[in-house]
Amino acid sequence: MSSTAERNKQAVREFYEYAINRKDFTAARSLIGDRYTQHNPRIADGVDGLESFIDELRTRFPYLRAEVKQLYADGDVVIGHVHGIRVPGQAGTAIIDIFRFDEDKIVEHWDVMQPLPDRSANPNGMF
Amino acid sequence: MSSTAERNKQAVREFYEYAINRKDFTAARSLIGDRYTQHNPRIADGVDGLESFIDELRTRFPYLRAEVKQLYADGDVVIGHVHGIRVPGQAGTAIIDIFRFDEDKIVEHWDVMQPLPDRSANPNGMF
Repeated sequence: MSSTAERNKQAVREFYEYAINRKDFTAARSLIGDRYTQHNPRIADGVDGLESFIDELRTRFPYLRAEVKQLYADGDVVIGHVHGIRVPGQAGTAIIDIFRFDEDKIVEHWDVMQPLPDRSANPNGMF
Repeated sequence: MSSTAERNKQAVREFYEYAINRKDFTAARSLIGDRYTQHNPRIADGVDGLESFIDELRTRFPYLRAEVKQLYADGDVVIGHVHGIRVPGQAGTAIIDIFRFDEDKIVEHWDVMQPLPDRSANPNGMF
């Protein structure tokens, strides 16, 4: 594991903490670049889009939490496998995020989200 | 990029081709271990679960295609960012798969799936 991969994983860990758990745009802003290309179709592009999204989370889902299950790194990319819970007690959502770095800043984000099911064809869970 | 990462990515490329595009369980079987731990809640556990799933795809979605957009590797894991289209002409589904290897065989699979939206808050697409 290269030191770049470790540094980037640590930045993503902090990004989840700042953006999702604390809903603190100013803290999250320190981790992203001046250009932030957004691929989540519910979030507007750029740094301003992230700010609006975090504002919305704080208003609509103040108890939203992201629990990081695994982080992977390859080159300038970090992948996060995350359990998102909007409202305490709910089953929540399985999320895989992909973050691309330019130097030490996050500059692009893709994700895929799926609600955890009530029932499963196997006993292994989604994580 | 280590040779193990390249070898595992190539195996995952072949797995998409065999399991999803050709729907050929026998070919896909050569890439997975004797134990295959399944985390997709719609697929039964193990090698037999994969066989039933591929049989179902062949019957219900004979034209289903997976287009691999990106592959990432970290340690014994390969992550695939994939566009799945069940029926030609449909917008399809954004998928991120995580495959864990033991030696040169795939032994565990997680994924998250999300339908592509009609509209997006940004112009960047989900890939």
